[in-house]
Amino acid sequence: MSIVVVGTVAFDTVETPFGKGENVLGGSATYFSTSASFFADVSLVAVVGEDFPEEHVAFLQNRAIDTSGLQRIPGKTFHWSGRYGYDLNEAQTLDTQLNVLMDFKPELPESYRDAEYLFLANIDPDLQMEVLQQVRKPKLVACDTMNFWISSKPEALKKVLQNVDIVIINEGEARQFTGEANLVKAARQIIALGCKRLVVKRGEYGVLMFTAETVFAAPAFPMEEVFDPTGAGDTFAGGFMGYLANTGDLSEEGLRQAIIFGSVMASFNVEDFSLNRMKRLEFKEIQSRFSSFKALTSFRDVSV
Amino acid sequence: MSIVVVGTVAFDTVETPFGKGENVLGGSATYFSTSASFFADVSLVAVVGEDFPEEHVAFLQNRAIDTSGLQRIPGKTFHWSGRYGYDLNEAQTLDTQLNVLMDFKPELPESYRDAEYLFLANIDPDLQMEVLQQVRKPKLVACDTMNFWISSKPEALKKVLQNVDIVIINEGEARQFTGEANLVKAARQIIALGCKRLVVKRGEYGVLMFTAETVFAAPAFPMEEVFDPTGAGDTFAGGFMGYLANTGDLSEEGLRQAIIFGSVMASFNVEDFSLNRMKRLEFKEIQSRFSSFKALTSFRDVSV
Repeated sequence: MSIVVVGTVAFDTVETPFGKGENVLGGSATYFSTSASFFADVSLVAVVGEDFPEEHVAFLQNRAIDTSGLQRIPGKTFHWSGRYGYDLNEAQTLDTQLNVLMDFKPELPESYRDAEYLFLANIDPDLQMEVLQQVRKPKLVACDTMNFWISSKPEALKKVLQNVDIVIINEGEARQFTGEANLVKAARQIIALGCKRLVVKRGEYGVLMFTAETVFAAPAFPMEEVFDPTGAGDTFAGGFMGYLANTGDLSEEGLRQAIIFGSVMASFNVEDFSLNRMKRLEFKEIQSRFSSFKALTSFRDVSV
Repeated sequence: MSIVVVGTVAFDTVETPFGKGENVLGGSATYFSTSASFFADVSLVAVVGEDFPEEHVAFLQNRAIDTSGLQRIPGKTFHWSGRYGYDLNEAQTLDTQLNVLMDFKPELPESYRDAEYLFLANIDPDLQMEVLQQVRKPKLVACDTMNFWISSKPEALKKVLQNVDIVIINEGEARQFTGEANLVKAARQIIALGCKRLVVKRGEYGVLMFTAETVFAAPAFPMEEVFDPTGAGDTFAGGFMGYLANTGDLSEEGLRQAIIFGSVMASFNVEDFSLNRMKRLEFKEIQSRFSSFKALTSFRDVSV
């Protein structure tokens, strides 16, 4: 099954306590599609400028990612600069140069419009709605967003959340969007809008997945070395959606496994800067870490 | 099997966004022993003043807690005042009146000295060492501490950590004690001191249990209503040690089940002020929530 992702392809300049990456490959669609490509066919929609090197496009294509939806227009590629302190859960944005992203008008190639799986990465919710109108009959649509859209376009965002199956956002964003400090209550409010599931990302504390009736809690993998958390959320979403597209199993059980695969992919991604770890990742490592998650979380039932 | 706990019995004045409890029953030994008493025999060592009402002693005795180690000396009972904001993970201490705690000299009654399970709740590490020297041949000793002792008596504390089997502390305390931001590295350093296991409490994010070779991650139960987090850590430790003493099973599997029972007890405790929830808790509710933890965390293995 094939997945379409709409989001950003970017240059990132990232500082962490462990080093610095300057003008490295980044962007939500890049992280998502690379991660998902380990499990399924992925097609990407994004925009870059004239300065975007062929080598990065070749990397995506070598991972069998369909880049026919990657627009190249006059101007410079979107550039994000950020810094992480020892608390690697939260980035401090130093600079955002939207550049060509200001003129981004997502246009799905005809071959993308029958996609069964669609991921709307964090972009303007009005653009997310435009994309939704271009796909014919997706089996599953998920979306992300960020604090900026929650405060600047809450109504447009609400409309998106009402029209997707799964919302995948950070803990702080769930609280901000609902104005509710208690996460379980915040989750119920978001689900009540119409989406069926909410996946709450909590950085090093893992993930909670809510439906109206169920909750699933997955820890993050305890890491001795976290070099760069950039892209962890999109890498998580890529593994999650990739596994779902691979199996087509949208039962609670299948979704829980997908959450673990997403967590596995995110745990690898933070081991190096940019997509460097993804570039040398092998599928048997993914399988092995899935088993480690099982060992990390399992306990025996009792009757006392 | 019987457990001895040495800690505080206190009056608490607690404010949360959901209400206020004034001069209510509190203290680490109170929370611990009440929680543990659902699983095993518990004997308590602590000190109170002349103002401590018989009704509270009767409550403990009604839960079959041995209070022959509860000293009553001239003066007023230890009194802690704190406030929680909407972020219920962290208390702000408003006032601490040590009162009789300043003269506390833990003295184990003869009948306590053959205890197989010993919990050194958060008190002066020098006193914790004195208690350790009074028990003959415990099967398992665990301890807690707090930021105040980490900064004021790091050497005395280190000696305690070297002489117990399990250290149970908060995430921030593990980082503070080691000066290491990465929690996995901090855990390795603490275990290297000589204790066999480290249990790291992370509030609403659950618990990690480390040995030199293994890690176990347990989520906290996602709660729609958290009224008062006071005592959650000691209630956790009480359920944990209580279950271990009940089964005598100190294998990795047994310890993981104990972590879940600890988490179950803590999840009930935060549902009401002081020990009010514990007072009306029934064992079948504990069993039922253990099953809910299983449902919350389980996922199927895969071969992809």
